[in-house]
Amino acid sequence: MKLRLLTGNDVRQCLQMPRAIDLMAKAFAALSSGQVSVPPRTKIASDAGTMLYKPALSSQSGIYVVKAVSVFPGNVALQLPVTTGLLLVNDASTGLPLALMDAEYLTALRTGAASGLACRLLADAKITKAALFGAGGQAGQQLAAMLATLPLEVVFVFSRKIESAERFCREQAANAGHSRLIPNPDRNELKSCGVICTATTSQTPVFSDDELGPGVHINGVGSFAPTMAEVPAATVCRATVIVDQREACLGEAGDLRQPIEQGLLPADFHPAELGEVVLRTATGRRSPDEVTFFKSVGNAVQDLYCATEILRRAEQDEVGTTIVL
Amino acid sequence: MKLRLLTGNDVRQCLQMPRAIDLMAKAFAALSSGQVSVPPRTKIASDAGTMLYKPALSSQSGIYVVKAVSVFPGNVALQLPVTTGLLLVNDASTGLPLALMDAEYLTALRTGAASGLACRLLADAKITKAALFGAGGQAGQQLAAMLATLPLEVVFVFSRKIESAERFCREQAANAGHSRLIPNPDRNELKSCGVICTATTSQTPVFSDDELGPGVHINGVGSFAPTMAEVPAATVCRATVIVDQREACLGEAGDLRQPIEQGLLPADFHPAELGEVVLRTATGRRSPDEVTFFKSVGNAVQDLYCATEILRRAEQDEVGTTIVL
Repeated sequence: MKLRLLTGNDVRQCLQMPRAIDLMAKAFAALSSGQVSVPPRTKIASDAGTMLYKPALSSQSGIYVVKAVSVFPGNVALQLPVTTGLLLVNDASTGLPLALMDAEYLTALRTGAASGLACRLLADAKITKAALFGAGGQAGQQLAAMLATLPLEVVFVFSRKIESAERFCREQAANAGHSRLIPNPDRNELKSCGVICTATTSQTPVFSDDELGPGVHINGVGSFAPTMAEVPAATVCRATVIVDQREACLGEAGDLRQPIEQGLLPADFHPAELGEVVLRTATGRRSPDEVTFFKSVGNAVQDLYCATEILRRAEQDEVGTTIVL
Repeated sequence: MKLRLLTGNDVRQCLQMPRAIDLMAKAFAALSSGQVSVPPRTKIASDAGTMLYKPALSSQSGIYVVKAVSVFPGNVALQLPVTTGLLLVNDASTGLPLALMDAEYLTALRTGAASGLACRLLADAKITKAALFGAGGQAGQQLAAMLATLPLEVVFVFSRKIESAERFCREQAANAGHSRLIPNPDRNELKSCGVICTATTSQTPVFSDDELGPGVHINGVGSFAPTMAEVPAATVCRATVIVDQREACLGEAGDLRQPIEQGLLPADFHPAELGEVVLRTATGRRSPDEVTFFKSVGNAVQDLYCATEILRRAEQDEVGTTIVL
C-alpha cells in the first residue's frame, strides 16, 4: 500500500490562488447541484478541545477525502498550534489510500478561494479599495483572493492588535505587489471600500452598518458557531445574502442565526448558494448600490476539489515523498 | 508536525492476541458505561464501493482515532485488496496528530479479540473442540482468539471452498501449536464443538440449529448488514444473545434484525452488551446447557483501545518511522 505524503510546502507548490478560485466555481456548482456526497461532519468535543472529521466524495473528482481538524484553544499557552489539519485521500474507483497531506495551507487557500469566487461573482469588478478584518492564519489567503480578482490599489488591514496588523502588512507586502497595504487606518476609510473580508474569531460585529459605503460586497469567513458574528444584523438584513451551503450556514453562522432568532429575518430565510449563482439558477448582485454578503462556514467539497488538483500536480511533478505502509 | 508511521508489521510487533483480549475487556466496559465518545460512523457509498470513517475518543486512552476503511468488492477482479484501512491518531490533550497506522491487521486483531473476550466470559472454560466458519482475512485472528482462551485440542475449519480451508489450515498450523486444525470435516463434528466462530460474508446461515450441540457458544463477526446472517433464527431465538453494542447490532446485523422483522423476536428485543457482562451489570451464561451467541459488528472503541497500546509500545520500542509533515 503506497501513500504519497505532502507537507504544507508541497501542497503550496501544487496549488495557488488563481487556479484554486477556478476550482471553487466547479466545487460549489457541484455542491449546489447535488453531484457530491458531503455527509455531515463528525465533531468530538472534550474539555481540552475539538476534533472535526469532514469527509467528501465526488465521482467526477475521482477521490474520497476526509479532513481531520483539531481545534484546541488552550494550545496557545503551550506554544502549540491551536488548529492542525491532515487530509487523507482514497481512490474513488478502488478505495485504495492515495495520499496524506498537511491541510493547514489547503484550508486557508480554499477558504480564501471561496471569497475570491464571491468577489468575482458579486463585487464590482472595478473596485480599487478593500478592507480586511483579521491578521491571523486565514488573512493571507483572503488578501490573495481579493488581489487575484480585483484591481486593488489599496487594502486597509484592521486588527484588534495594532502590531498584528502592522506585522501582517509587512509580511504580505511582497505578495501584494503594487497594491498598498495599510495597517489600522482611520475607520472612515471603510466607507470607500468596495469589498470587505472578515476573517476573525469575533463574537460581535467588527464594523457597524453605518460605516459601510454603497454597493459594498462583504465576505465573512470567520464565524462558524451560533455565538459568533462578524457582520451586524442591520447589514445582513438589508444585504443580498449568498452562502456556501444553506443548511450549514443557517445552522452554524451567528451572522445569520442571530437575526433569525431575533425575528429580524424570517424563520424560513432562504439565501441563495454561491454554487447557484455559478449555475445561474440564482441571481447574485441585482444593482450597483446594493450590499452583498457572502457567508461561508466552509465545506468539505472545497477540500475535495483542491485535493484532486493537488494530487494531480504532485503525481505529475513528483512532489512529496512516497511511503509503503 | 511529526507523525509516526506504522506498517502492518509494525502494528503486529506492538500488539498480539492475549494482550488485545485484556484491552477489549476495558474497551467494552468503557463503551457500555458511556465513558467513550463513539459518534455514528460516516458511510459514503458509490457504485464502485464504500468508504467508512469511524472516529472515537476516550479521555482515559489519551487519543482520538479515526479509521478510514474502504470496501470495494470489484477489486477482486483487479487483484487489488477488497478492503483497506488506515487509522489516524491525534493527541486527546493537544489535538496534534501523532500517528498513522495500517489498520488491516489491527481490524482483524481487535475483531478476534472481541470474540476471545466473549469466549472467556461466555464459553465453558474446559472446551476442547471448536469450529471456525470462514477462511478469509478475519479467520486467523478468530482462531488465535479461541486458542488464547480455551484448551482446544482440535479446531474444525469450514469453508465454502475446500481448498481455502485446506490452505488456511496449512498456513495456521504453526500458530495452532499442539491444537489440530482439520479442514472441511464431516458436518456431524459440529455437534461436538463447544465454541463456533463465524467469520464469513454469507447472506444465509452457515449451519442449521439442529447441528448444534448443547451449551455451545457462538461468536458471529461476519455479518454487518440487515441482508446478511450467519446464524439461523432458530438458534438466535433460543440463545442468550450478547452484543458488542446494542444499537449498532440491532440496526445492522441481519442475524438479529431478520428474526425481529419476522416477529420471532420481540420488537423491543434488548440483548445485553459484552461490556455489561464485563461490568457484571448483565448476566452472560446462566446454565451449562444453554446456547450463548455473541454478535459483533465492530466498534471504533476497539480500535481506540488497541491503538493506544500500539502507540505506547511503538514509542517505547521505537517501532515505525517518524516523518515531519
